Amino acid sequence: MRKRLINYKIIEHLTTVFTARVKFNEADPLGIVWHGNYIAYFEEGREAFGREHGLSYLDIYANKFTTPIVNVVSDYKFPLKYGDVYTIKTHILNCPSAKIIHYYEIFNQEETLVCEGQTTQAFVDLEGDLSLYAPDFYEEWKNKVNFK
Amino acid sequence: MRKRLINYKIIEHLTTVFTARVKFNEADPLGIVWHGNYIAYFEEGREAFGREHGLSYLDIYANKFTTPIVNVVSDYKFPLKYGDVYTIKTHILNCPSAKIIHYYEIFNQEETLVCEGQTTQAFVDLEGDLSLYAPDFYEEWKNKVNFK
Amino acid sequence: MRKRLINYKIIEHLTTVFTARVKFNEADPLGIVWHGNYIAYFEEGREAFGREHGLSYLDIYANKFTTPIVNVVSDYKFPLKYGDVYTIKTHILNCPSAKIIHYYEIFNQEETLVCEGQTTQAFVDLEGDLSLYAPDFYEEWKNKVNFK
Amino acid sequence: MRKRLINYKIIEHLTTVFTARVKFNEADPLGIVWHGNYIAYFEEGREAFGREHGLSYLDIYANKFTTPIVNVVSDYKFPLKYGDVYTIKTHILNCPSAKIIHYYEIFNQEETLVCEGQTTQAFVDLEGDLSLYAPDFYEEWKNKVNFK
Repeated sequence: MRKRLINYKIIEHLTTVFTARVKFNEADPLGIVWHGNYIAYFEEGREAFGREHGLSYLDIYANKFTTPIVNVVSDYKFPLKYGDVYTIKTHILNCPSAKIIHYYEIFNQEETLVCEGQTTQAFVDLEGDLSLYAPDFYEEWKNKVNFK
Repeated sequence: MRKRLINYKIIEHLTTVFTARVKFNEADPLGIVWHGNYIAYFEEGREAFGREHGLSYLDIYANKFTTPIVNVVSDYKFPLKYGDVYTIKTHILNCPSAKIIHYYEIFNQEETLVCEGQTTQAFVDLEGDLSLYAPDFYEEWKNKVNFK
Repeated sequence: MRKRLINYKIIEHLTTVFTARVKFNEADPLGIVWHGNYIAYFEEGREAFGREHGLSYLDIYANKFTTPIVNVVSDYKFPLKYGDVYTIKTHILNCPSAKIIHYYEIFNQEETLVCEGQTTQAFVDLEGDLSLYAPDFYEEWKNKVNFK
Repeated sequence: MRKRLINYKIIEHLTTVFTARVKFNEADPLGIVWHGNYIAYFEEGREAFGREHGLSYLDIYANKFTTPIVNVVSDYKFPLKYGDVYTIKTHILNCPSAKIIHYYEIFNQEETLVCEGQTTQAFVDLEGDLSLYAPDFYEEWKNKVNFK
């Protein structure tokens, strides 16, 4: 019944690693990172991916699109505590439809997998209309980075 | 491939309605509520549910358990903007295992469904050990509220 | 050396009271509300003030101005804990220059003063230029509400 | 009337520089960093200071004290936008009483000063009592780092 987080093939050469430190205000009264903050961690990973591979929010916006999140899944395995250093591996999945699907793995400093997640983004033009086809700039990006 | 958000029966008489207003700092540069903030909205709904039905975090803690979130799914349908008033309907699903599964529907002031979500919580004792069986207090709570 | 938080006269009939409940994710590993979250509480109070007295962000924006915060002071007296219910009393100070200065008092459910604060806002037009004089709409608002 | 942010001498050799990038969810509907988020930036700076100079939250906690924030002041000069890279210079002020006072300067990538701030922390023991004298461990730390 659990959603398979890797529902399309991972494109191995398009992976970005980002490392940061848990902040005091991200931990909750139990002393562990509040579960909602992992959604911001996924965004940190996705933005690092965008900067490395030329698919940032600002790149997309320059092409007159935004890519709002339409689905998030987060699977929590092990807590992160204040002071921990975490590493996010952000992948992109080979989804054929007009969507961007990222898959995330977050590890602590002992390399324990603490969280897995997935986000799905749609393409929306600046009038706010959902694009049923992937925009040209995205197809060109796929060619350039050998997305397949 | 999408996870079915209602994977067990909704227990109709255990539903809580909570209404609040979108805050300025919850909206992002696109002028809409940042997707990660819905995880906090689910928590608002879940806590209102706990207060109404006697299953709050503090009730659970008084029974020497915590119920960390082990899975979150959020499905975004329509944006909320700064100034909107939203209503969260929080349900509980009839899950037979040692888990608490909530299902959420969030509506705007026009009663448009803007977001659906699900959270799964496990039972962990104060030593940090996962409970494979639902604790006694939870079974008693189920009897008391006619959970079936 | 401490900044006097009431550096102009309080206009007594322009006070707004707003009550809310501390959320789980607002508390930190010490079990108390993280100090940065009071800035959002001040905003809750200020927005309730704006709705009650006709000076909301959207009212201001309709007059082609924004009022960015240029100064915040927060003085912490006593902790708020998860589960506490707090009340914000938002006042406006009789400042003669082109600024909006609010003064805030936050109380817990035992009516203990837990925090005092002040925010200062400037008027900026939609080209981003700071207004050295209070805009006409603000002078009209002051007359309407008997601000003196 | 404005609080002087440098009310004691800066101890020049105890300064820490920390650089980070504005995140998407830190910007508000005006496209600029929401003012409350600078309180978290001050904390980033303060924690980097603590790690560099041996005065972190965990160091203090190991000595059976916490140092809650009792006062924050933030003075906003210029907006930060999504995508900007900011640098926090965190200083400590030579305050003779049982307080820790930090002074912060935040710069954007063009080295424009965007924000100045100050935080004051008190010493509280694990029973929750305010310490009227600086604890021994703090006096020892001051000697070790040549705080004067």
